[in-house]
Formats: sequence, C-alpha cells, structure tokens
Amino acid sequence: MAALTTRELAKLVDGELRGSGDRLVVDVAPLSDATEHHVTFLEGAAAEGRPRTNAGAVFLTPKHADVFGPDNTSEFILTPAPLDAFVKVMLRFRPVAERPSVGISPAANVCRSAKLGQDCHVFPGVTIDEFVEIGDRCVIHPGAYIGAGCKIGNDATIHANAVLYPRMRLGDRVIVHATAVIGADGFGFQFQNGEFIRIPHTGTVRIEDDVEVGAGTTIDRAMIGETVIGAGTKLDNQVMIAHNCRIGRHNAFASQVGLAGSVTTGDYVRCGGQVGVADHAHLGTGCSLGGKAGVHGRVPDGEDYHGYPAGPAKETYRIAMAVQKAPEMRKQIRSLEKQVQELQSRLAESDVLRVSAPAA
Amino acid sequence: MAALTTRELAKLVDGELRGSGDRLVVDVAPLSDATEHHVTFLEGAAAEGRPRTNAGAVFLTPKHADVFGPDNTSEFILTPAPLDAFVKVMLRFRPVAERPSVGISPAANVCRSAKLGQDCHVFPGVTIDEFVEIGDRCVIHPGAYIGAGCKIGNDATIHANAVLYPRMRLGDRVIVHATAVIGADGFGFQFQNGEFIRIPHTGTVRIEDDVEVGAGTTIDRAMIGETVIGAGTKLDNQVMIAHNCRIGRHNAFASQVGLAGSVTTGDYVRCGGQVGVADHAHLGTGCSLGGKAGVHGRVPDGEDYHGYPAGPAKETYRIAMAVQKAPEMRKQIRSLEKQVQELQSRLAESDVLRVSAPAA
Amino acid sequence: MAALTTRELAKLVDGELRGSGDRLVVDVAPLSDATEHHVTFLEGAAAEGRPRTNAGAVFLTPKHADVFGPDNTSEFILTPAPLDAFVKVMLRFRPVAERPSVGISPAANVCRSAKLGQDCHVFPGVTIDEFVEIGDRCVIHPGAYIGAGCKIGNDATIHANAVLYPRMRLGDRVIVHATAVIGADGFGFQFQNGEFIRIPHTGTVRIEDDVEVGAGTTIDRAMIGETVIGAGTKLDNQVMIAHNCRIGRHNAFASQVGLAGSVTTGDYVRCGGQVGVADHAHLGTGCSLGGKAGVHGRVPDGEDYHGYPAGPAKETYRIAMAVQKAPEMRKQIRSLEKQVQELQSRLAESDVLRVSAPAA
Repeated sequence: MAALTTRELAKLVDGELRGSGDRLVVDVAPLSDATEHHVTFLEGAAAEGRPRTNAGAVFLTPKHADVFGPDNTSEFILTPAPLDAFVKVMLRFRPVAERPSVGISPAANVCRSAKLGQDCHVFPGVTIDEFVEIGDRCVIHPGAYIGAGCKIGNDATIHANAVLYPRMRLGDRVIVHATAVIGADGFGFQFQNGEFIRIPHTGTVRIEDDVEVGAGTTIDRAMIGETVIGAGTKLDNQVMIAHNCRIGRHNAFASQVGLAGSVTTGDYVRCGGQVGVADHAHLGTGCSLGGKAGVHGRVPDGEDYHGYPAGPAKETYRIAMAVQKAPEMRKQIRSLEKQVQELQSRLAESDVLRVSAPAA
Repeated sequence: MAALTTRELAKLVDGELRGSGDRLVVDVAPLSDATEHHVTFLEGAAAEGRPRTNAGAVFLTPKHADVFGPDNTSEFILTPAPLDAFVKVMLRFRPVAERPSVGISPAANVCRSAKLGQDCHVFPGVTIDEFVEIGDRCVIHPGAYIGAGCKIGNDATIHANAVLYPRMRLGDRVIVHATAVIGADGFGFQFQNGEFIRIPHTGTVRIEDDVEVGAGTTIDRAMIGETVIGAGTKLDNQVMIAHNCRIGRHNAFASQVGLAGSVTTGDYVRCGGQVGVADHAHLGTGCSLGGKAGVHGRVPDGEDYHGYPAGPAKETYRIAMAVQKAPEMRKQIRSLEKQVQELQSRLAESDVLRVSAPAA
Repeated sequence: MAALTTRELAKLVDGELRGSGDRLVVDVAPLSDATEHHVTFLEGAAAEGRPRTNAGAVFLTPKHADVFGPDNTSEFILTPAPLDAFVKVMLRFRPVAERPSVGISPAANVCRSAKLGQDCHVFPGVTIDEFVEIGDRCVIHPGAYIGAGCKIGNDATIHANAVLYPRMRLGDRVIVHATAVIGADGFGFQFQNGEFIRIPHTGTVRIEDDVEVGAGTTIDRAMIGETVIGAGTKLDNQVMIAHNCRIGRHNAFASQVGLAGSVTTGDYVRCGGQVGVADHAHLGTGCSLGGKAGVHGRVPDGEDYHGYPAGPAKETYRIAMAVQKAPEMRKQIRSLEKQVQELQSRLAESDVLRVSAPAA
C-alpha cells in the first residue's frame, strides 16, 4: 500500500490543494476516526456546524473551504465532488480483493442439465438444479440454491444461502445478497368452507439488469404473469415485494419496506425505511416516501409523501405540528365555552335591565 | 398444451357462454396482459369502472356480464366464481411440474438415527440431525436443516435453506418456505448486575396441520411449554412470532407482521402488513387488523381495528378525518378568542352606557 | 428425571415453604398449563387480578403470598426472585442437552488456510473460507458460511445457515442465530447520470463479547471503518442495523427494529418492536423507545420516547388522548361559532335599542 503525498492526492483527483502538499497519507478514514496519515472527505450534513478532524487531508468543496477552524491541522483538497474523489483514492489504497478462482467446486451440486458460461465460480454447498442457464463470469457463493429452469445473465453475483425458486429470470450484473429469497409463492388463497386454499402461483419473477437485492429481502412470484423489478433498482435488506408487483427502473427502497400485492411504481421512486404500501397502490415516477409512511391508492409523480396515512410532506408536517397542540386546543375550547356562557348570561340580564329602564 | 375452444372452456367450468364458442384459447393471463388466445377472469376491484382486455375469453359473474364496452372483442363465460374457474383452467394448461424423484440424495447429510417415511425426497445439502422423525411423501429442499429430535407429519414441504431448531413439531401438509426459521430461542433475559443473562428456552414450537410459513418468517420456541400455530393458519413472508405465542386456527397474517411474547389469538384472525402486537395482547376470533396497526391489550371478537394506537376502524377513521382539520381548528380557535374578547369589551362599555342612561 | 418434594424445592432455592413440603414435583410448567406434579412461578403482570393454577407448587414473592384464592390447592415457596428460582429448578429437571461431539465434520468445507481452536464443532454443509481464525470451543451449525478472513473469539455459536461476509470480527461468547447475515454491503450509492452506482464498502463489522444476534437479523458492513455492536447487546429476530452504526453496550432491541446508516447509541438502550431510527440519529444512554416509535435526531439519556414522530412518553400520551377527542373538538368549535354569532347579533340589536331609548 504505497503512501501518497497530499500533492499527489490533489493531482490524482484533479483538485485544488490548500496546504504544503508534502504530507504523507496511507489510507482513507471517516472524518471522526481519521488520523494524520489518513485522507477523509467532507460532504452533506457533516459540513454543517463546526466540523473537526485529525485527518492529514480532507477532500471538500470550494464552498466548504473554510468551515474548519484555524486549529484544524489538515491540508485541504478542493473538488466539486468530495465523495467521488474519496472513493477513487479508497480504491487506490484498498484494491478490491480478487476472489480465489475456484471454478466449479467439487463440493457444489450442479445438475448435468444445467448450463454455465465462461469463468463462473460456484462455491461449496451450492445446488444448481435441472436446466438452469447461467451466463459468463457469474459467482455463486456457498449454500446458494438456484432452482430448476432459472435463467441468469452475465456478471451476476448470488451471495451465500440466497434462494432462487424455479424459473426465475435474472438479468446482467444482478447482485442478490445473502439469504434473499426470490420466487416464493405469493400469499394468495381462496377462502372456502372455512379454510384458506392456496391459489397455485404459476407465474415467475423477472429481475432486470443492474438490480441489487438486499440480504433477507423476499420477492414473491406472480400468480400468473410476472413480478418485475426494473433495471437499476436497488432494494436494501429485509424488503418485501409481494406477488405481481411491477417495480420501475432505478427505484431505491430502504430496509424493511413492504409492498403488498400488485403494487406498481414508476421510475426513480424512493422509499424510506419501513414504508408500507397497500395492494394495487401506484407510486408515481420520481415520487419519494418518508420513512414509516403508510400508503394507499396513488402517489402522484414527483410528490414527496410522509406519514400514516401518507400525504404530501408539507401538509403532513402542518398537521403534525397542529396535532402537537391538541391538548392546548382542548384547554382553549373549554375556556371559550366558559366565556361565552358568561357573555350569554350577562347579556340576558342586561336585556332585563334595559327593558325595565323606560319604566324609570 | 392442447388448445380449448371457448365452448369447451364453458363446459369445463360449467359456465354460461356468451359468444361464438369457437375461439381457441391456449393459456391463462392477467386481464391487462391477455391476448386473443388467452383466457382471463374478472373479479373484485378490477370489475369497477370500465375494464378493458384483449383476452379471447373472460370468466366473470352474471352481475358483471355487461361491464365491458361494445368495443371489447372477448367472448364471455358467466360463472358465480370466476377465480375458481380460472384456477381450474390454469391447472389444465399448466399442470404443476412433478419434482424429479430424487429420493434421499447422496449429497444430503442424514443421521443414522433419523427415520423417514415412504416416498420422501431429500435434496443435496440438506442436514437431518439425530432422532428426527419425518412422515411419508415429505420434500426437503436443498440446504434445509432439520434439528435433532424434530417430528414432521406427512406430505410436508420444507423449502431451501429453511431451519428447524431441535425438537420442533410439525403437522401434516405443513409448508415452510425458504430461509424461514422455526424454534430459535425466545428473546428472554434476566437483567442482573448490569448485564442481560439469557433465560434458557427449553420449550418448543408446535405447528399444526395445513399451516404455511412464509419465506424469512421466524417463530421462536417457548421458554417452557409451546409456541403454537393453529391448524390452517397462513403466515406470509418476514412475519415474526415471538416465544409462547398461541395462534388460533385459520389465521392469516400478511408480511412483516410482528407479535411480541405470549400473544394469543382466536380463530380466523386477519392481520394486514406490518401490524405490530404488544406482548400478552389477545386478538379475538374473527377480528381483523388494518395494515401497520399497533395493538395493545385486547381486540374483541369480530372487530375491525385500525391505526396506531389501534381502535375500532370507524372510530379511527373519524379521528383521522378530524385530525386532518387540526390546522384549520387552530385558526378557528384563534378567531373565536378574538371575537369573544371583542364581545366582552363591547358588553362592558354598553353596561357603562346603560348605567349612565337613567341619569339622562 | 428425579422428582423433588416441595420441601426439597424450597431448600434448593433457599425459599420459605408454605405447605406440607411432601408434595412431589417432576417438572416445570407455565402457570396456566401446570398440573399437580409441576412447579411454576408467579411474577409481574401474571400476579395482577386473581391468578389461578393447578400447579403442585408455585414460586412467588412474599408480597404475592396471598394472591391465590383459598380454593387454590398449590403449595407456595416464597422467594424474592421467583423467576430465578424457577430457572434454577428448570435446569435441574431439564439439563441442557450436550451436542454430540462431532468435531470437524467430513461433510463440512474448511479451507486449509483456516485456523480453528480446541474443541470446536463444525457441522455438515458448513463452509469456512480462506484465512478464517476461530477460537476454542466454538460451534458452527449446518449450512453456516464464514467468509474469508473472519476472526471469531472463544465459545461462540453460529447457528444453521447464518452468513458472515469476509473480514468480520466477532468476540467471545457471541451467538449468531439461524440465517442472520453479518457484513453485507451497506446501502450506499452515488447517483450519477440517472443511475445508482454502488459505493464500494471496504469497512467491516465488529461484534463485541457476549452479543446475541437474532434469527434473520442483518448487520451491514461499514463503507469505511466499522459497524460496531457493543459488548452484551442483544438483538432479537429480523432486526436491521445499517452501515456505520455504532451500538453501545448492553442495548436490547426487540424484533423488526430498523436503524438507518450511522446511528449511534449509548449503553443500556432499549427499543420495542418495529422501532425505526433515521440515519445519523443518536439514542442516549439508558433511553427507551416504545414499540413502533419513529425517531429522528437525538433522544436524551434516560428518556422514554414513544410514537411517530417520537416524543417524551408522557407528552406523547397527552397528545394521543387529546387526538381521540378531535371529532368532539370540531363539534364544540362549530357550536361556539354559532353562539358567538348569535351573541354578536343580539348585542348589535341591543345597542340599537339603547340608542333609541333616550328618544322615548
């Protein structure tokens, strides 16, 4: 792991150096943990207030050039995209380890009728069932199960103990993390004579290119037709996608999000953690749902929805603020009721007086 | 896959034909995806508004006989239960694939003391531990683990990488989906000298006949006694059932539902997605909880509860509607306060006038 | 399983006997299931109201000595800590079964470069990758995967089908339950040219001594640096800990809790089920979050927070109570508006009268 001077760092990321340029850096580190031989970066929330770091060097935007106090001994490298610069340098200091090239492990169970492409790695304990077709350069980690008739594209990675039920379709560069389950039967039953009778689910799941499926995430097969995850979409851990959902392209769902059956989404939809979406709802292109939001019906394109039941963020916020005042409002109402009563009685009596007045 | 005429379809499901009867259908499809050689069905929400389909044939109820526009070229088959008819035809067009008959795979690890019934299939990578007893016609998919002393009935299916801890009891026709975990130690600790000390969980889990356990669902063992899942109950994916819960018969829990310790339920209880139930709560027979509901205490038999904290659906709805008006209410209160003040001062002054009046 | 007399029981737990002392007990059971030859215990909520049991003997506190009716035929053993007494006796009646001593199963896949300590058990279907280091007396259950370069302390237990990604660090006596996933890549992407580009996660996860990780729980690796779970912390099933979180010592999180990225917690933090915590939030030492709470920002040390958005429990409760009255409040406001209008008109007219009065 060769050291780099701050001058070399600045050159490497094409940034503007503020400092001697001679300081030596040997690795990357987070703002708070970095020491004199680390380079870190400043971006977003971390830049607010008065940040501190012991890092030898910091990537940051020109806008933030002066946020560190004079007591901060770092050298600074100005760049419009500090995180990009940081990642570039991280990969220089920490080249991604090559997996040992195992090929098809003799401790894997691969059916004769399965077809694998070039340069695939299949680790011990993997089972690849009948008539599976896998593209080139795929890696199947220990304990994963690829069900009969599954088709997987090129450069896909299936992590340890993940499960693909039969007849799934995965595109190129798909990543399925550990223990994720793709293609379990949807939760569909007919209620007859007091019992739930399973509706056979003969559909499948189609996962397009560049999708990432988080650890423990489950995506159910369609009853008929397909459950679809659009190209470039990223699902975090423990996400639930029910049968017949059709997720658009480049969606991003945080962990523990749950979609009921037949939900559809446009492109570039974002869901915060633990969002729940009722069956047959639609999330419009570019919309965004705040953490824990609970959604029925339709969310319009580009809208930012929060809360449970979910509504437009601004509106939801106004309501939440008002709700905080509910106890006070009850007091105010009680006091108003008293005052009005008093006014009524006073006015009544003043009428009496007035009526008697002429008599005087 | 033999084609069927619409006349043959009508005959097969004992329905009333509206059309030529000569059209050929080769497969089933959803309303929206179907083309001229598909049969589809119309039921529930899909029937509202003005449905459209390119399907060659549609199963639908007499009530909906005329919902399709004149421009809709489908032939119609009237039947009181369109979905039943559809499933019947689907299984005709798509016979459920027989699993290859592997018997006990040599790549499975089955302890000598384990007893398996007739016609069981045990796939590669399965481990069946000491003194396990499994009935007839059970299928254990790759990577599943059956802990020591487990007893499983007839016709059960354990999917890939599912885990049964030691001494579980499963009835007949139970289905356990991939990566589900049955019998992990309950989350019970004693807090002593600033540390959590595990309370040994020596109880078990008993799963009765015809139960289905979703992918990634976890059911913890009891501390003592049993955690029980009643006959016919269906649990969707990523459901959590904590130690010592006693779930009744024919319950249906949607995905990501969580029950804390010692919860009891009657029969025919339904929970929407992401419902949470506090420890020792009771869900009465036939009650239903809306998605994301949060429940403490008791839900009466047959009640429909929503919200967090959960209450009777109607009441919860009334409150939610009123809460939407909270910002407006604050305005109204402020305005009332002004008006009342004004009234008070006007009345005060009119009293002065009146008192002076007689002097005139 | 030797029987014990109630006298022997009382002696064993150093308790005060209320009864003949001659009754024979052969096992433990819950209050509700116990029969004449069982001992049970009474503690907490169960002691409220009028408990009933058919148990031959009951451990309970002096305070509760008389809560059982005269018709209750149990003998009683008074002790300040009934649960402790119960556990002690349970372990006497039900000694924890020793796992058969398998050593390293020939059906496990252990890389040559891996180092295992003394008296480890590695079950069939386990894969232990290159350069793994495992301490003494560890048990790795069937189908578990230990990624390259992981380091595990002494007396750790990894349950069936659990997954450790490469380079994890686990301390002594750590328990990882079935299908838990430690070290998947954090959910971190850069959004460039309309696509999410994964930010390489080169950090790791460090799990300190005596931590327990529940079934299906996922803990993501840090982007750089470490995701940390402090000593003695217990995580229930299906908990999600995102990248770069730093959890303190002796925390206890119930099932389905989700923490977003870079959350920090003090020591002795407790979270109820389904709690959600937004990224970069902080949970202060000794604070407690009620089930389903949704948290942003900071929770002060020792505070008890509830609700969504979460606030101090008392405050949240007051607000929730007031919100229940929202529909009534709307009615009251409408009625006040009417009365005030009426007052205004009456006052107006009385002014007219008064003005005309002198003319009389």
